This record gives sequence, C-alpha cells and structure tokens, in this order.
Amino acid sequence: MKASEIGEFGLIDLLAKIAGTPTNKELLIGIGDDAAAWQSDAPTQLASVDSFIQDVHFSPDIAPWEDVGWKTMAASLSDIAAMGGVPRYALVSLALPGDTEVDDVTALYRGMTRLGQEFETAIIGGNISSAPVVIISITVLGSSRGKSILTRSTARPGEQIAVSGRLGTGAAGLKMLTGKLQFDPEAAHVLRDAFLHPYPRISEGQLLVSYGVKTAIDISDGLISDLKQICKQSQVSARIEIDRLPVEPTVKANFGEKALELALSGGEDYELLFTASTDIIEEIKRAAPCPVTVIGEIIADKKKGVTLVDSEGKPFNPGGAGWEHFITR
Amino acid sequence: MKASEIGEFGLIDLLAKIAGTPTNKELLIGIGDDAAAWQSDAPTQLASVDSFIQDVHFSPDIAPWEDVGWKTMAASLSDIAAMGGVPRYALVSLALPGDTEVDDVTALYRGMTRLGQEFETAIIGGNISSAPVVIISITVLGSSRGKSILTRSTARPGEQIAVSGRLGTGAAGLKMLTGKLQFDPEAAHVLRDAFLHPYPRISEGQLLVSYGVKTAIDISDGLISDLKQICKQSQVSARIEIDRLPVEPTVKANFGEKALELALSGGEDYELLFTASTDIIEEIKRAAPCPVTVIGEIIADKKKGVTLVDSEGKPFNPGGAGWEHFITR
Repeated sequence: MKASEIGEFGLIDLLAKIAGTPTNKELLIGIGDDAAAWQSDAPTQLASVDSFIQDVHFSPDIAPWEDVGWKTMAASLSDIAAMGGVPRYALVSLALPGDTEVDDVTALYRGMTRLGQEFETAIIGGNISSAPVVIISITVLGSSRGKSILTRSTARPGEQIAVSGRLGTGAAGLKMLTGKLQFDPEAAHVLRDAFLHPYPRISEGQLLVSYGVKTAIDISDGLISDLKQICKQSQVSARIEIDRLPVEPTVKANFGEKALELALSGGEDYELLFTASTDIIEEIKRAAPCPVTVIGEIIADKKKGVTLVDSEGKPFNPGGAGWEHFITR
Repeated sequence: MKASEIGEFGLIDLLAKIAGTPTNKELLIGIGDDAAAWQSDAPTQLASVDSFIQDVHFSPDIAPWEDVGWKTMAASLSDIAAMGGVPRYALVSLALPGDTEVDDVTALYRGMTRLGQEFETAIIGGNISSAPVVIISITVLGSSRGKSILTRSTARPGEQIAVSGRLGTGAAGLKMLTGKLQFDPEAAHVLRDAFLHPYPRISEGQLLVSYGVKTAIDISDGLISDLKQICKQSQVSARIEIDRLPVEPTVKANFGEKALELALSGGEDYELLFTASTDIIEEIKRAAPCPVTVIGEIIADKKKGVTLVDSEGKPFNPGGAGWEHFITR
C-alpha cells in the first residue's frame, strides 16, 4: 500500500503503534497532541536536531529502510552522547512522497524504535508531510545526569586529545556499499555493521562527565573537521600524531593507504573525541567499556587549527577534509 | 552569493549572528555545540516539531522568504499555544539546494527571528544540509507556566465549544495569493496579512489554563479536521452550529458562499478551539484580548464525530475536509 492511500492520519496511527506507549511516569503527553509534555527535575535540559535527506545522507539502494531508521536514530542520539547527557525522548518529523510504500515507512520506524529502545529513548511525537524525497528530521530531548555537561568550548592547552573506539570503519563501510567492493565475509560484515548499525556512545559520554572531563564532540563529520570545531570554540589549536590513530585493522587491511584518510576525514564514526589531562584519561581507559586512545594534544595557539604530524614530528598533509555540505570537495 | 559558495559552516555563522545570543541566564549552550542546553524548573516540559516543504507548505512565488520565516515560526509556536504553554527556544533544521541565494536564507532566518523575539523565543540550535528543495523543520521547546496544560483528550459531554478570533482569513489569503485574485486594497491587506503574518495565540492559551480550561487544539489544519482530533482522543462527538461561526467579514464580503467552507476546512487559521463550561467561557470572553465565540457543544457519542447543523438544527453537509497530507481531496 502507498502512503497516499492510507493518508497522514492513518500513517500516524500505524507509526504510533510501532513506537509504542512509554510507561514511564514522567511522560505526560506522547504522540497525538499539539506538543509532547513531560516532567523533568534534571539540572540541565538538552535538545538537538538532525536531518537526513534521501540521496544525500542515505539511499534505499544501499541500506534497507529499517537500517536507515536505526542509523538516523543512532546519529541523533550521538549528539546527546557528546554532551555527556541522557537521551529521553525523540520527535520524528517525516516528509515523504505519496507513492512511498507504507511497509518501507513502518520498517524505517521499526529501526528507529529498536535503537531508541536500547537507550530507553521513546518516540513521543513528530509529524508527517509530503515531499519530493524522503526527509527524516529527528529531535532528541535529553537531560544531564548531574550538574555537568560536555561542551566544545572548554579545551585548554596542554590537555591530551583522546578518542573512543576504532576509526575509519563507518566511512569504509559506506565506500564498500556504494562501490560494491568485494571483501572477505568477515571484513564485509564488520564494515557493513559499522556503517549501518552504529551505537551512540551514550554511557561513555556520561562516564567522561563522571571523571571530570569538560570537552567532547562526536566525530561523525570527520575527526579533523570536528576537532576544528573544538579548536574554534575553545580558541586553541590541536596537534594530532597520525601514527597514534586507532585505525580499525579491517580498514587498514582492505583500504591500504586510504585507511588513514578514512579515519581522519571520512566521517561516519560515531565515536567521541575528548580532551583531558593524562591522569584523567588513564583512569577513563581503565573504566571505559571500549578502547580509549590518546592521539595528540591541545596547544596554545588561536589560529593554527588542526595540525597533523608523523612519528618524527614532521608535518603531514592529507587530502580531503571533514564533510561540509554545499562545498564540493 | 549561493549557499554552496559560503558552505555549511559559513552559513551557520551568518545565521547564528541573525539569531543573536540570548541573554537569559537559564540558557547554558546555544548554537554551535552538539546539543543546546538550558535550565528549567517548570513543572512540565513541552516540545513540538513542524516541517514545511517548499511547494507543499510554502512557495517563494507567493511569499517572500522573510514572510516564510515568520509564518513557519508562527505555525510552530502555535502548537505550544495550544498546550497553554510558554515557548522558550527553537531549533531550526534547514535543508536547501546548493544554489539557494544566501540572501534568501538570511531573509528566512530574519523572519523567524523577528516572530520569535515577539514571544521571547530564541533560536538556539539546528542544522543545515543540502536537499533538492527547501525544507524547514522547527522544533519549539517550551514549558508550562503552572502545573496544568491543555490537551486533546479531556473534552467532556455538555461542554461548550469556543474559538478565538475570526475564521477563514488564512485560507482566504492563500486563495487570493495563489489565484492572484484582485480585491480592494484594504481587504487584500487583511487577507494577505492573515496568511503571511499570523500571530500564535500564546497569551490566550495561557489565559485558558489560568481559567481552568483543560482541552484545546489549534485549528491550523482546518476547524473540522482539528475538532475531529479532539473527538477521537476524548471519545466524544461535537455539534457545530454553522451560523455561530465567527467568519471574518472581509472573507464573507469577498468569497460569498465559499466563506463558510474556508472557515470550516480551509485551515491556515492559527486560532485556538477549546471546550469548557458556559460560565468559564463567559469569564474568558471578558478577559481575552481577542474575540471568543461559542460555536457548538460536545455531545456524549463516541462515534458520530463532528456534526454540522444550521440555525434550524438541520444537518448541514459541506464539501471538503481538513487538510490531510497524501489523500487527494
């Protein structure tokens, strides 16, 4: 059946059933009213919006709709992870052509709901309208666990720069899927999963806050590009030692020299980059459920931005940069 | 200059300047971080998202970009008005073709900011991406003033149904602009202004709460369609006396018999429909800064939905229904 046959309200009823009715006492009004309403006694409220456009951010040719749902919700929750916050609720704004299959829309919503459930984040509102292509806009509403949050403007010279997880897998997965590259089944599975089913670093973000970290960002736009945001807002510069980057071995094995570029500017890695003292990072390494790797340090220079150096300290100049919309690379 | 020349981050910097930096102490993090962050000790948090698609919800051929900005922000705030809430912040997600003029985007943002300022609602975040047409998605974050909010599920049999303001002007304005209809200058001004520069009924929504009203909705999708939502969620029916509808005289004078249909199902009226006892409505009439008119009553029937009757109590059957996306009327 097509979306145009079931209609906006029919579709909303169907999607509301998939989203389910959250049972937490704090939620006062979910899907179906003019606005969602909830109670919160958290010190700090958080909200972030991300939009995903068909053939720009995702393509049904590459990823089934349920995977698109998972991925878009994961990317949205990642922003709350980068604040060290607790995601609570999501509003999903869908725009789609009238001839979209209802089964595709329900699959999309199932994917979002599945990932949301893993992080106790319920879809409590949104809207549906018609458009020439599918556009998904997800607002995540969250809160701080304690009084502190992670920002982009608090990095200080002398702090070490660290990242969670392994790098390059998301972008490598995208390259594999779009280029129809053939790898051995195990590698293909790792890369496909990294691109389609990322897990936002929610608990890791909260862990950073609990150890006194002040500064973090998620590096889904590319490590260099996102680190530049920290430099700009903290009025500092950063030096990255490329040999210390935790590039995923599967990416190295299958992409050779290209692996470094994927890790530095490929984007699609839903990892956290943060800055802190050596001592704090050592403690976090012991406590974190994922690898944590120091990759460089913050330096006192307002203008240099991000500098890459090799193992001998010599400047290293890669091609590419973080994904920026509109400017063709 | 085109959006593709200035780039995503250049555009964000430009738009952040237009939005300005709110000075309220509760705002912790505005535009430029992974998420916005603020403090709130309100009993209830509110959030709502609305999306507006070029050539579906707006057209640059009909309305200048600054007007589109005003209108989309007004429509978004209207959802908070319908909850009786206080809007606080907005997140704006913009998707646009790379060849969009930067001047058009800044005009759009100026319009949003101007309307937002009238209601002390600052844009504190969002994102920008590329898309085949312009898509504007606005999340409004608000809170309740006291403990109560207005919902759609609390209408009770015997309550009167009332609306704020005059009806039919928004839809009439749209018809005038799309059909290039010629009216006398005064009428043209009224209709154009109603369509392009609606004011959300923020203070009126809060007034309803303060007088003990429990049930309201905004009727921007059309009076009948939106009243049906109240009937469905409250499990009641509604009877509207068409002769009591406060159709705007300018609409009656220029659209003749069509005026009633515009008022009933044309949509685009950012008015509040609410239910309450006769006594409460009389008090609200005296206190409200706008006309308040009783147009019918809630009846104890789960299935009848919305019935229209004429002055003699006879059933009246209009053409059309509230705007529903996908289903062609």
